[in-house]
Amino acid sequence: MKRIYVNELENYYGQEIEISGFVDNVRNLQWVQFVILRDVTGKVQITIEKSEEKNKELVELVSNLTNESTIKVTGTVLESPKVKLGGKEIIPTKIEVTSTCTETELPINIKDKDASLLDARLDHRWLDLRNEYNMNIFKIQSKLVEAMREFLYQNHFMEIHTPKLIATASESGSEVFEVKYFDTLAYLAQSPQFYKQMAMSSGMDRIFEVGPVFRAENSNTNRHTTEFTGFDLEFSYIDSYEDVMELEEQLLMYALKKVKDEYGDMIKETYHQEVVVPTKPFPRIKLHDLYQELEARYGYQVAEEAKGDLTTEAEKLAYQYAMDVYNSEFIFVTDFTKDSRPFYHMRKDDIPQGYDLIWRGVEITTGAQREHRYETLLQQATEKGLDKDVEFYLQFFKYGCPPHGGFGIGVDRLTMLLLGIPTIKEAMFIFRGPTRLTP
Amino acid sequence: MKRIYVNELENYYGQEIEISGFVDNVRNLQWVQFVILRDVTGKVQITIEKSEEKNKELVELVSNLTNESTIKVTGTVLESPKVKLGGKEIIPTKIEVTSTCTETELPINIKDKDASLLDARLDHRWLDLRNEYNMNIFKIQSKLVEAMREFLYQNHFMEIHTPKLIATASESGSEVFEVKYFDTLAYLAQSPQFYKQMAMSSGMDRIFEVGPVFRAENSNTNRHTTEFTGFDLEFSYIDSYEDVMELEEQLLMYALKKVKDEYGDMIKETYHQEVVVPTKPFPRIKLHDLYQELEARYGYQVAEEAKGDLTTEAEKLAYQYAMDVYNSEFIFVTDFTKDSRPFYHMRKDDIPQGYDLIWRGVEITTGAQREHRYETLLQQATEKGLDKDVEFYLQFFKYGCPPHGGFGIGVDRLTMLLLGIPTIKEAMFIFRGPTRLTP
Repeated sequence: MKRIYVNELENYYGQEIEISGFVDNVRNLQWVQFVILRDVTGKVQITIEKSEEKNKELVELVSNLTNESTIKVTGTVLESPKVKLGGKEIIPTKIEVTSTCTETELPINIKDKDASLLDARLDHRWLDLRNEYNMNIFKIQSKLVEAMREFLYQNHFMEIHTPKLIATASESGSEVFEVKYFDTLAYLAQSPQFYKQMAMSSGMDRIFEVGPVFRAENSNTNRHTTEFTGFDLEFSYIDSYEDVMELEEQLLMYALKKVKDEYGDMIKETYHQEVVVPTKPFPRIKLHDLYQELEARYGYQVAEEAKGDLTTEAEKLAYQYAMDVYNSEFIFVTDFTKDSRPFYHMRKDDIPQGYDLIWRGVEITTGAQREHRYETLLQQATEKGLDKDVEFYLQFFKYGCPPHGGFGIGVDRLTMLLLGIPTIKEAMFIFRGPTRLTP
Repeated sequence: MKRIYVNELENYYGQEIEISGFVDNVRNLQWVQFVILRDVTGKVQITIEKSEEKNKELVELVSNLTNESTIKVTGTVLESPKVKLGGKEIIPTKIEVTSTCTETELPINIKDKDASLLDARLDHRWLDLRNEYNMNIFKIQSKLVEAMREFLYQNHFMEIHTPKLIATASESGSEVFEVKYFDTLAYLAQSPQFYKQMAMSSGMDRIFEVGPVFRAENSNTNRHTTEFTGFDLEFSYIDSYEDVMELEEQLLMYALKKVKDEYGDMIKETYHQEVVVPTKPFPRIKLHDLYQELEARYGYQVAEEAKGDLTTEAEKLAYQYAMDVYNSEFIFVTDFTKDSRPFYHMRKDDIPQGYDLIWRGVEITTGAQREHRYETLLQQATEKGLDKDVEFYLQFFKYGCPPHGGFGIGVDRLTMLLLGIPTIKEAMFIFRGPTRLTP
């Protein structure tokens, strides 16, 4: 018999089915036993009348059943409006215990996630994720990434897999993990940036990658993690970074629509967030103008020397500004100073041709047109004292390379913002931080 | 004007279009100039009549054009049966040089890949991939992985991202890379095995992951690499490893069909391989019976003590056997000895409940039903002396865990076999080996 899921039960009223899941709860009353079965899609009540002779074995089995054991149930689905849990129940003919939870007490409270400390929850993540609120985060995340990929496949992109073990400490030099690599040292890639661009030089035209990104930052905040999932793309023959912004607009519109269609109601009910499908163009503002607006509107002041980059507070206020003026959750900030942007961003009149995208008060992307002309790129690298470190990368641009640009999005951060989760630690399947390497 | 690709040109005969790509070749004749433009989909001829007054600037530009520079061309598409290259040409009104290849000689031969040594090609991978044969490998690989994911989404699977930085040296203890992790050490995950299973204990039901896998093996062969892309999945509430084999059959049938539909002709023409969409069930044979057959049929003999596992030669012959007897490119080999299988494979009468899948003479998967019962698992780990190392993992099974199973496939190896490429070094975007960390 084909196993079905809880959310499919209403298609099987009156029929015999097979269903499997965890024992969410057992109530053993005088005349009746109730078992709540929980699978990845929801919960259902299984009802056993104690008085019926044929139920003798079942009654004994259920009497010994412990919460969090797993069972396989064969039975008939009934539409039962009186049953609070979804108006249906299963009358079983057979229950098989497929695994037994022998511990009478769980180390964390999985029914009420807020009743346990976050650290205890992360220590027992495999139990923590049995809580629906936590579990569903990853169904939604999977859908989000699926939709993002789908959009890109439809737009001539191919997926590549770039190496995470690299010979030099890449982009910034600091904050990279060192790996013992046979008789030498390797480093863990902080981003696929250089390899995405190598693909452009190869003529791959439009590529993306979804993969781990490593940051050896010794920061313990709600937004930092030493390993996260990056969604990175790069594409060729653009005319300016406007093309990059437009692609990102389309990508986010597409993906958020798909997520809303599938999970909009659940997100509203469980996470109390409205999924708003944006329309394009997203508002754009120059960094300098943004600071002026923030001061004029909200009295936000910041030292002149900090104005080359976005402060965390300015990110928050930029969101308020975007909502107040444009009723938009998204806003592009452009025209950063060259000191605050990497050497590989193209510059025009000394202004980096890139942007940050702010969503709900947090930066989710840095995007840019890249400098693809060898001589200029060499000069910009030299200016930042990086020409020796990135020598291998500079070679990619010596033999012709299409003009190109791209951006990266952190999947976990995006998930966190989508669902209004207060910390990235809960938006990742397994969190890694300076003091957390387990489980 | 919207940029179009070479493979779309025939939809635009008589129309003005914009097209971008590399300069594959320039021929400057007495009366006419030909530029061959190459983009990610193919090549097209651009024809400039020198005698026409309006072409004066174009002629001068093309006279200085170097191979491997990139250009953007505006012009009219003509159907020209006489033109050897696809029976069409573009008559340009404008050519813009978007990047210049200043080197007169390339370090490798990109028109004839076999004219350069593999190591030189890998050193200059961004040029090597400009060769169509090499580039198209990754279009096909992208399609293959897309199709595999598609099948899984349709079958209740969600995608997860498991940590690559782990606290203990995992499964085998040997062959793992060590990472300096702040004041302590971490290791790079050799497989997502333990975390896939954690997801099962969490009740995630059906999950997959596509991500990097690290192996610190000091082997320099055509099949080994220190980093590759693993396609791993795991699913719950199975009855036996037959369910795992069946899912893998369906997955491969689905994915190979999609690849054949899209790229079957190209694969035949470029790689001289026929994509054969398999039918299920794939043949199955017990390891012991296989060795008997190989000896009886092909005179293959192997020492008794080696018969617990598959030898490389036996993998090759198993393919021959599968073709000879079943006309099948695939064959499942089951009933390995417990010494040759990891402790977490479920056993029945002491026989591991798993399999290897052989395709075209190479093992592409190890799959199994996993042991999900804490006491039995602890005992099997202890037997192999691993109980201390895997203590964190054993915890996943203490509080109930559905019966489950799964398998992993190496994406690069699969690509290699699909296209008949002699070495995995060419089937990866960028190869990593004990002596290769660049580019």
